[in-house]
Amino acid sequence: MPHTLDKISPYLPFGDRRDAPFYGHDILSVNQFNRDDLRYLFGVAHEMREMVARVGCFDLLKGKVLANLFYEPSTRTASSFMAAMQRLGGSVIPISEVRYSSVAKGESLPDTVRTLECYADVIVLRHPENGAAALAASYAQKPIINAGDGTGEHPTQALLDLFTIHEELARVEGLTVTMLGDLKYGRTVHSLARLLSLYNVKLNYVSPGILRMPQEVKDEVSARGVAQYETSDLSEVLEQTDVLYVTRVQKERFEDPAAYESVRGAYVITPDTMRAAKAKMILMHPLPRVGEISMDLDSDPRAAYFRQMEYGMYVRMALLAATLGKA
Amino acid sequence: MPHTLDKISPYLPFGDRRDAPFYGHDILSVNQFNRDDLRYLFGVAHEMREMVARVGCFDLLKGKVLANLFYEPSTRTASSFMAAMQRLGGSVIPISEVRYSSVAKGESLPDTVRTLECYADVIVLRHPENGAAALAASYAQKPIINAGDGTGEHPTQALLDLFTIHEELARVEGLTVTMLGDLKYGRTVHSLARLLSLYNVKLNYVSPGILRMPQEVKDEVSARGVAQYETSDLSEVLEQTDVLYVTRVQKERFEDPAAYESVRGAYVITPDTMRAAKAKMILMHPLPRVGEISMDLDSDPRAAYFRQMEYGMYVRMALLAATLGKA
Amino acid sequence: MPHTLDKISPYLPFGDRRDAPFYGHDILSVNQFNRDDLRYLFGVAHEMREMVARVGCFDLLKGKVLANLFYEPSTRTASSFMAAMQRLGGSVIPISEVRYSSVAKGESLPDTVRTLECYADVIVLRHPENGAAALAASYAQKPIINAGDGTGEHPTQALLDLFTIHEELARVEGLTVTMLGDLKYGRTVHSLARLLSLYNVKLNYVSPGILRMPQEVKDEVSARGVAQYETSDLSEVLEQTDVLYVTRVQKERFEDPAAYESVRGAYVITPDTMRAAKAKMILMHPLPRVGEISMDLDSDPRAAYFRQMEYGMYVRMALLAATLGKA
Repeated sequence: MPHTLDKISPYLPFGDRRDAPFYGHDILSVNQFNRDDLRYLFGVAHEMREMVARVGCFDLLKGKVLANLFYEPSTRTASSFMAAMQRLGGSVIPISEVRYSSVAKGESLPDTVRTLECYADVIVLRHPENGAAALAASYAQKPIINAGDGTGEHPTQALLDLFTIHEELARVEGLTVTMLGDLKYGRTVHSLARLLSLYNVKLNYVSPGILRMPQEVKDEVSARGVAQYETSDLSEVLEQTDVLYVTRVQKERFEDPAAYESVRGAYVITPDTMRAAKAKMILMHPLPRVGEISMDLDSDPRAAYFRQMEYGMYVRMALLAATLGKA
Repeated sequence: MPHTLDKISPYLPFGDRRDAPFYGHDILSVNQFNRDDLRYLFGVAHEMREMVARVGCFDLLKGKVLANLFYEPSTRTASSFMAAMQRLGGSVIPISEVRYSSVAKGESLPDTVRTLECYADVIVLRHPENGAAALAASYAQKPIINAGDGTGEHPTQALLDLFTIHEELARVEGLTVTMLGDLKYGRTVHSLARLLSLYNVKLNYVSPGILRMPQEVKDEVSARGVAQYETSDLSEVLEQTDVLYVTRVQKERFEDPAAYESVRGAYVITPDTMRAAKAKMILMHPLPRVGEISMDLDSDPRAAYFRQMEYGMYVRMALLAATLGKA
Repeated sequence: MPHTLDKISPYLPFGDRRDAPFYGHDILSVNQFNRDDLRYLFGVAHEMREMVARVGCFDLLKGKVLANLFYEPSTRTASSFMAAMQRLGGSVIPISEVRYSSVAKGESLPDTVRTLECYADVIVLRHPENGAAALAASYAQKPIINAGDGTGEHPTQALLDLFTIHEELARVEGLTVTMLGDLKYGRTVHSLARLLSLYNVKLNYVSPGILRMPQEVKDEVSARGVAQYETSDLSEVLEQTDVLYVTRVQKERFEDPAAYESVRGAYVITPDTMRAAKAKMILMHPLPRVGEISMDLDSDPRAAYFRQMEYGMYVRMALLAATLGKA
């Protein structure tokens, strides 16, 4: 069912806040959110953060069941949704062996989600193919939350990235955000750039020439009047940066190994790099990292990448509560 | 322990309804049920259905632990039992990686179940070998629920099939049930035919000549005085049919590919096929389907196969509650 | 963080017994326990046993989340921790597909545990490499419980072995414990010997010459003044034995197959063997067994190996409660 329509759960017909934003909605794409939506979601996520700090969990979603349907492995994302549901008192059906299951027997995604929604109240879906989440949502009666489909969308990652900035720096308006590394293939930075373009920010893109931010993303961002600047030299923009978002530059992207070797050093962040950065800024990474950020930086208070993981749990708690009408 | 004897749980010695039918029993075979048993179980399952519709879950099995022991993958059955236990407030230990575990180290099934019952209150077992559930039950003190053992039994599937008929058509007595497809190798239809023979029904078997219902099953059914009719032509019986139960005809069953191609069309249900069927009848399938029922039929109110999945959860809730003395 | 320091959980800052022994501690090695520690832990584990017998579970750890991080499969240990957490009202994130996950993408153990502790309150870690648990603990803020790292430590196994003796024979002081089988490679018997050496016991080691208890372990034990005796003949010591702890002698350990065949019979326990044993003694095995103990012995009241599994759950309940400040 399109995410603009409510999906009315047959479960718990009373007690749900049907008038709540996102009640019964699918979460498919960053493009479905406006600033009011984000203000609402981040408000709920912030409450979740305080609640976890105070009491660890509560029974907001007691009696609700989440099907965590992962067609490709992602320990981090699957664990985050699982913890989010459990800390709200709900329970989880983890399905991560899809390759051995009825799907392997040839079952279609629409049939699989329509079976799972017989058991569960909400489905989190990770799938290797672009558009899989929208396809699933068009068949499912219960909300579908896209946990990444191919090179397409991974909206909860973008939401947690933005929420991290919001919580760490207390605002988004007016910030300078620098994205570094592989900006061509990383869906993370594409989605984050789109979300940030809802705000009055400045975006810097630092990458090797062959790994630049796609024109399509830049066009969308500039259509919203957001200033963008491209360079392959971090030092040009680091001093002004409030958020440095690092992604991995993979050797495989380069035809010529020598070309890779010549640039790789420029995309590894060390304590030395950070000397030129502001005292009050944050260093982010979607993780896992494989050498892009030196472990020597882990104790730097600006290193926000592990806190970023924790914010992810709060955002997912907010999304689960909201789609189930309990936020 | 044989299923006719009680297995007394050391846990929760008070509060259990020890006089409840099935308390401490194993669920191994459809042959262990008579009509009184089914009336009782379906009464409990119906209450579960209403409870889930009203409040989603409740804490009937709070503090109870289910070990979901799957020696072969079955996402559908494993998820169904998991959701059933969670909606009753219990918790689940999912064990689906048996191939990598102590079993791979050579441990016997009796040792594995005797270990798991140290942790859990009830064990659901899926195993590739015929008789595995009875073997496990003969060693275990806690109840064993057979979730399919080889080409042998899959009693909870047959129970959910019958419960689906019961809920959808409000009765079983007097119905005409037509089974279609591969009736030779499908344990589903064997078990369902056996269960249905407890009632005054008419059974039609529609299959290619080489995939007929085994004589053994037909003998059992006819010994109970139930009328059976065999044909390879659905149109002969469709108009009289109250329940059309479809199973897949696999190409691999035919020595001659041409023979398969010549019959396959007769075993695919389309909107066209259904034009000749009653307005008030149901179309069932154990799922997954791979083309046997056209997706164009999914919106036909007679298409009961996804509701069938949901009924499966209620039946499993009833079985868990009953074997643990809480029904 | 070293296990001698408290790790203060950011969750549930009130209600925790911060003064409780082991609150916020890692459980890495048997060497971290003295007799006072063991008395305390076994007291808690005994209460857990009585609680489970009486009411099945209670909500001591409600709202707490355990990450069950298994880099190699161990159904038995993983299930035991999972049941322990669930019977205390907590929830579990099972991570057993590490080979397909971010770790496979090259993530380091320190990064993985620092991510998981964003979601969970305590991490149980099984890892194939010696020292992995201590490494993880040095990075994690939340408690790490070592569930076996390589040929190194498996402290919860040793604790459950000792607790079994304690519960079955009502004491440890003064007992004669005979370890049989492969004493060279079995980390189980090394850890148990170390723990037992805190008490006034007598230890017998029965093994083929090539599979003797390592000198290093014997030196540690004798430094504590505990008498040890080595032999390859069980009959020499069986009559005096209060606890017979059997481990498997693997064919692969022998260069010469004939040498293996000549000794194997001496390391298989049958009803015949047990005729010479005391009426009130116990027969233990860490399981899985592959022929070392005849199934004919399973109904012998002295056969304690399945009860041993159950005691394991109580010990793990005690450790989880203690490290989370709720014991």
